[in-house]
Order: sequence, then structure tokens, then C-alpha cells
Amino acid sequence: MLFVELIRKKRDGKELSRQEIEWIVSAYTRGEVPDYQASAFLMAALLRGLSRDETAALTSAMLCSGSVLNFAEIPGSKVDKHSTGGVGDKTSLILAPIVAAGGVNVPMVSGRGLGHTGGTLDKLESIPGFNVHLDLVEFRRILAKIGCAMIGQTDELAPADKKLYSLRDVTGTVESPSLICASIMSKKLAEGIDGLVLDVKTGSGAFMKNDEDSEFLARLMVETGELMGKKMVALITDMDQPLGRYIGNALEVVECVEVLRGNFHGSEDLVELSLELSGWMFLLGGRTATRDEGRALALELIKNGQALERFRLLVREQGGEVQSIDNLALLPQSAYREEILASSEGFVTSIECERIGVAGVMLGGGRFTKEDSVDPAVGIVLHRKVGDRVSVGETLCTVHYNSPERFAEALPVIVGAYLIGAQKLPGRLLIHKVIQGQSI
Amino acid sequence: MLFVELIRKKRDGKELSRQEIEWIVSAYTRGEVPDYQASAFLMAALLRGLSRDETAALTSAMLCSGSVLNFAEIPGSKVDKHSTGGVGDKTSLILAPIVAAGGVNVPMVSGRGLGHTGGTLDKLESIPGFNVHLDLVEFRRILAKIGCAMIGQTDELAPADKKLYSLRDVTGTVESPSLICASIMSKKLAEGIDGLVLDVKTGSGAFMKNDEDSEFLARLMVETGELMGKKMVALITDMDQPLGRYIGNALEVVECVEVLRGNFHGSEDLVELSLELSGWMFLLGGRTATRDEGRALALELIKNGQALERFRLLVREQGGEVQSIDNLALLPQSAYREEILASSEGFVTSIECERIGVAGVMLGGGRFTKEDSVDPAVGIVLHRKVGDRVSVGETLCTVHYNSPERFAEALPVIVGAYLIGAQKLPGRLLIHKVIQGQSI
Repeated sequence: MLFVELIRKKRDGKELSRQEIEWIVSAYTRGEVPDYQASAFLMAALLRGLSRDETAALTSAMLCSGSVLNFAEIPGSKVDKHSTGGVGDKTSLILAPIVAAGGVNVPMVSGRGLGHTGGTLDKLESIPGFNVHLDLVEFRRILAKIGCAMIGQTDELAPADKKLYSLRDVTGTVESPSLICASIMSKKLAEGIDGLVLDVKTGSGAFMKNDEDSEFLARLMVETGELMGKKMVALITDMDQPLGRYIGNALEVVECVEVLRGNFHGSEDLVELSLELSGWMFLLGGRTATRDEGRALALELIKNGQALERFRLLVREQGGEVQSIDNLALLPQSAYREEILASSEGFVTSIECERIGVAGVMLGGGRFTKEDSVDPAVGIVLHRKVGDRVSVGETLCTVHYNSPERFAEALPVIVGAYLIGAQKLPGRLLIHKVIQGQSI
Repeated sequence: MLFVELIRKKRDGKELSRQEIEWIVSAYTRGEVPDYQASAFLMAALLRGLSRDETAALTSAMLCSGSVLNFAEIPGSKVDKHSTGGVGDKTSLILAPIVAAGGVNVPMVSGRGLGHTGGTLDKLESIPGFNVHLDLVEFRRILAKIGCAMIGQTDELAPADKKLYSLRDVTGTVESPSLICASIMSKKLAEGIDGLVLDVKTGSGAFMKNDEDSEFLARLMVETGELMGKKMVALITDMDQPLGRYIGNALEVVECVEVLRGNFHGSEDLVELSLELSGWMFLLGGRTATRDEGRALALELIKNGQALERFRLLVREQGGEVQSIDNLALLPQSAYREEILASSEGFVTSIECERIGVAGVMLGGGRFTKEDSVDPAVGIVLHRKVGDRVSVGETLCTVHYNSPERFAEALPVIVGAYLIGAQKLPGRLLIHKVIQGQSI
């Protein structure tokens, strides 16, 4: 097959066959076609769009570029959750122990933070000793033992995605629903799961800024997953302000442990979303007959301490120091803290989510490039969220930092992210829409 | 400047500034940005289109990537002609000596054949000894001495185009009017000319298959040239059947010499187009006040032998054996000839131009890839053209070949290119349209 002919076909808006798409993915993964042809193809695919059949074929080809895990020997169903990424989005650390404690397995392969959004692996690694680089044998052993395990992407799972994603990142070809769908779904379906709950973020802090784009992507992923025989549901959820109160790696672990301890104060949105996602995971895993029953079960597993206990087991199995969970002061602490005070009176009308995320990266808590290292201790704790009343001199948020230079740089970004108005604006819904697959 | 941001800008349909386009061309030519980003940009530019300002900026940036010749010290004006390429399109070899003999300088930088279309350099090289690889000093000397010189693209003229064209060829990004315009015009404007006559081919044997696309490209090139202060005219001319009677490198030299000798029989379309283009070149060069006077001058220069004599001088100056022009039997001859006979009676309704071109390449007369070598002797001589009456057993064309295997492969392609019908169809105009710049 001549790659240039396939590029021209897609450029001219024609539909590629499953066989043609498989050839592209396999030839590119094996290094038989050059990056400059692949990037021209990706741009044509982004601008011309891929049909549902093309998207499914691409997902399937990327999935089949590596190992596909099979946990059939482990009793019980296996479900996972995937979020398209946001600021303060830490639900994975809450969901995995809840759902595992409820008897449904969660084999979770997660990513790192890039740009203004955080990543689950960076958060887990702020727990001293926690190892996310398990091989697949160890991943399987821990999953079988405690019902959940959390690792990073390996070279064995969907290697085509790893190679394609690096290229997309530097060629302006990230923002295509079909390419995003294939990237996410090929990795998640390689986990050997029966069902997947998608948390598609929408709003100023998300990659998809409006509900229409988010819903298009959500439907595409739900349909693609169903074509592969998986139980699917997607929630379109709000990312117009950070989720929960804590932003930063160790800080987010603190908030998750507090929620698992049943201390919900100030984290109501995080708790609500975690219960909702858990409810769907229990439903997809066949553990409860309805999402409401699933939600109730999740709440019960927090209240009776079983979810927290499962999280402690997870930390121990993956080499982490459990005492830092029991005594959160043992988690990495920043050298300095500074409170940001309100300079005017009124209501918080907006916390510009992307700015807060960028400020977190500027403090050292995330990565501008893949090579950057991450400071686990730094971050921002929000004391006021959208809709809250504030008076002059009240604390809006506390910045945790290690480098005064970095703090000086991030400060105006943080201050500028808070908008205070005279009137309280109507709040945004946390869950905008639910898109259920046909099979649930 | 971050290239990925410029890719995204064009991808999203926004207009790039002159400065941004200059940065892209200059960074790419210097090897500071990788091919995979350039190809993604080219695909975005092709699918989103470039504005007139962007096209002009791109042309100018590519022009300025190398030397721009200046022949101010050579008396008289300098004009050139550029064709977008076709089958049997050999007018350059006729025009250059005519126009030079008429007192207007023609500094011509030409290309090689690629795909189904022929190239001026390959035709010239079929004359024993003819050297198209002159350096710019020699090019200037010959131009000053005899008023014309014909060389190949050098590394000094528009190097950005050379690099970009190679990339476009393998990434499906050739067929963009703006990119074609910038590629052609950057090379031609580097020749140090005052005016340019464009021959934009349209029809089954051309890159542009219909008049609308051809006219769009023609207008874009005329406008771009005028922005650079050049006198411009574009002719949209027919390429639905091969031009003239001979296709093949040495065979086309034979036809050109016959035309310069005043033997026009069977080459009427070639003669008509050559006179028309010469007429415009004389007008643009300020040699005549009208195109009609220019046409009359061109015809006179053929009739009085001055054009042929100028061609002999050109061959001599560029190292070719003049005796092969005086005795055409000394040009490369094929080992075999085979006549293709009509198997039905009626009128020739079509000679599928691209098939004839491809057949010529299959015989060895052209290149499927840039690395292929070219056989100067092979080709096809058409005895019947569109509109001619044929009887069963009459010769349609003669195939000149050296390899029986290649002949066997090309034969069905040639036979299939001739369509014979019961009724004579209305003929196509040779010159579809003329698009004049404002300044002429």
C-alpha cells in the first residue's frame, strides 16, 4: 500500500477501509512509514473528520498494536473510569478503593499531568514509596489480591497510541474527537475490562470548552466501546472551576483521604461526583441493579471505613508508606505557605480553572514539557469557591510553595483567576448530562 | 515562535501574518523545524486554504530563501514562460529561440518530467552533448551573448521550494493552488525577469482537470506576480489530448526543429500555441505594441530562418552537437518501431492524454520516481488526432521502443487511450481563456 495514496484519500474526504486503517497503524508502529507522512495524515483526519466506522477501526488497530490484558481467571467483573482531565480532578483515588471494597475489580492504568491538568500517577507518587511502575505480573497479582491496582502506561499496552500521541502533541493534531476517542479507548480497552465509565469534562478548565463538543466526544466513545462489546456510560461533568478544594499532588491525596474518612466539608462537589461515578461503576459491574443503589453502597463503604481500609491496602501493596495515610502530616510538605486575601467584597463569580491549573504548574506541581520533574508538595488550597460570599481581607486561597521565585511568578496568575462580583450568579450543574450505552 | 502554535492557527482557519510565514519558511529551510511539523502545516494550508496575502507572503519568503538573479547589465527586457505541465508540451524549445531572435531575453530555468508529464530538461538532454547543468556565471554569459539560455533548477534559486516540494510530493500536499502558486512563482521570479507568460493547462492530461480550477490558479499567479512588480499574463490552454504529434524526448526535439524549419504539417496546434505564447512574450517584453504584432513577428522569425539559427546557437553554446539538429537522424533512435492500427472505423473522439503520458513513461521515456533514468529515444508519434477520420487498418500511431517487455506492458494502455466513435464530436478550443494582469 502506498501511504501517500491513503493520505490523499482522507484529504479528499473519502472514507478509508478497515484494512487501510490497520495498515497505517501497523506500518507506523513498526517504524515503516515516516513521521512526516503520519502527521500529514493526522491533520487530514482532524480537518476532514473520521466516520464512526473509521474511528472504530482506528481504535481497534491501536488496541491490537500491543497486549490486551485478560483477567478472566480473577473472579468478579472488572470496570474502570476514565476522565478527560481537569484541575483538582482526583476522583480515581477515591473510586478505586470504594469500588474494589464493594467487590468489583478496578484494573486502572493512568496517566501523568501535562499542561494545566493533573495526572493520577503524579498524585500517587507523592505518597512516599508508592510505585506506579509495576510490571503486568505484579499488576495482576495485586488486582487479584485486593481488587484494585493503579499503574502507569506500559510499552506493552497500545504502543501505537504512545507513538501517535507524541506526534500529535507537536503537530497540532490533538483536538480531534476521533483521534481522542481512539487514543483513550485503545488504552482503556487494553485493560481487560467489562465496562467503562467516562467522565467527560466540559468548561473553561477542560480540553472541551462547551457541552456540544463534550457530548460529541462522549457519544463517540460510548458507541466505540459498545462496538467492542463493553458496557459504557459517559457523564458530561463541569470543569468550569477546580473540583474539590485542593490542587497539587500531595494536597490532593490529603483531600482524597479526608473524603474516604468521611470528612466531606468543603469537598461537596468532589464527594458528589465520586458517589455518582461509583454508582455507575457498581451498575456496570453488575454489583447493584441501579445507579442509586450503587451510590448508596459507595456511601456506606465510606461510612463503615472499608473504602479507606482498601486504600491503605492499595498503598501497602504498591510499596507506599501507610503511616503517611494514617498521619497526613507525613506527606510531603511545602516550605512556605501564603494566604491570598480578598481585596473586594461580594460573591465569587468565577475561578478561572485553566489559570489555576497553570499556576499550579508554575509553582512546580506539574509539567510544561514531558521532561519536567514534579514537586509533590506545592499547590493551592481554595477556601472560597464559586457562589461563596467574601469580605475584604478574607482568605480566598492558600498557596503552598517551595521556591519564592516561582511563587512570585504564579501569584498574579492566581489572584487574576478569582473574579468577585456584587451579585451571586446562578451556579452551574455538576453533572450536565448522562449518555448511556444501549446495553445497560 | 512555537511552530505548533502556527500549525494550530492555520488548522483553525485563521490567517497567518507575513512575519509568521517568513519564520516558517526560513526555519524550515535552515533545518530548524522537523519535516513532521512542516507536513502537518502543509496539510492544514491545503485544506484550510491560504489567503491572497498569505500566498504572496509565502511566495516572497520562498523567493528570498536563495539568490535572486539580476540581469540589469544585459540590455533589453527579460521574459519567460511557464507551463503547468502536460503531454507533448514542448513549446519552450520553440519559444526561447523565437523570442531571443526577436530581441527579448529569455533566461529559462526549467524542470524535469515527473509522473505522466514531460520535462524540458529531459528533452534538451536528448540532444547529444547538451548540458543543462550550467552554473549561474555561464548562464549569464550565454544569455548576454545569444539572448537565451536554458538550465535546470540550481541549489541557489529558491532552495525552500526544493525542500518543500520534495515533502509535498510524499505527503499528499501537492494539489493546493496557493502552494502550487508559491512554488512556481518563487522559482520564476528568482530568474530576474520583467514579465512572465503562464500557460496553465486544463483537461484530462493536466494537473487541473477543469477550467474553474485552472482559472483560479491562473488568477492567483497573475496577482502574485503583479504584487511583485512583474508584467503577467496567463493563458488557460487545452490539455485534453497531447499537444502536437510527438511524445518522447528526442521525438519532441524533432518536432520542434521541424516547426522552427517552417514544416507545420500535423503540428498545427503546437504551432498555434507557440505563436500565441511568443506574441504575448513580445508584448510583455515591450518588443511589440500588441500581441498580434508579436505573433506576426514570431511567424516571420520562423519563416526567415532566424529562430532556427538561434536554436542552433543555443545548442552550440550549451555544448550540444549542432549536426544532430541539422540532421535529425543523428538524434537518439529507438531499436524498434511498431504501428498501432485502427480496429474500427469512424472518428477519433478522444485521445486520453494522461494514458498516453503514462504509456510514454512505461516505455522508459519518463520517471515514475525521481531516481528513474530516462531513455531519450522512446516515445509515441500520433498520426491521427481528435476529430480525424479513420478506417480499419489505418495507422493511429507509431510506438518507438527499445525494450519489447516494456512495449508489451505499454501497448494496451496506448490502444485503450484512443476512442473511436461513429460521429465527429465538436472540438475543444486550444486557448480557453486569457487572464491579463493590470499592468499590460
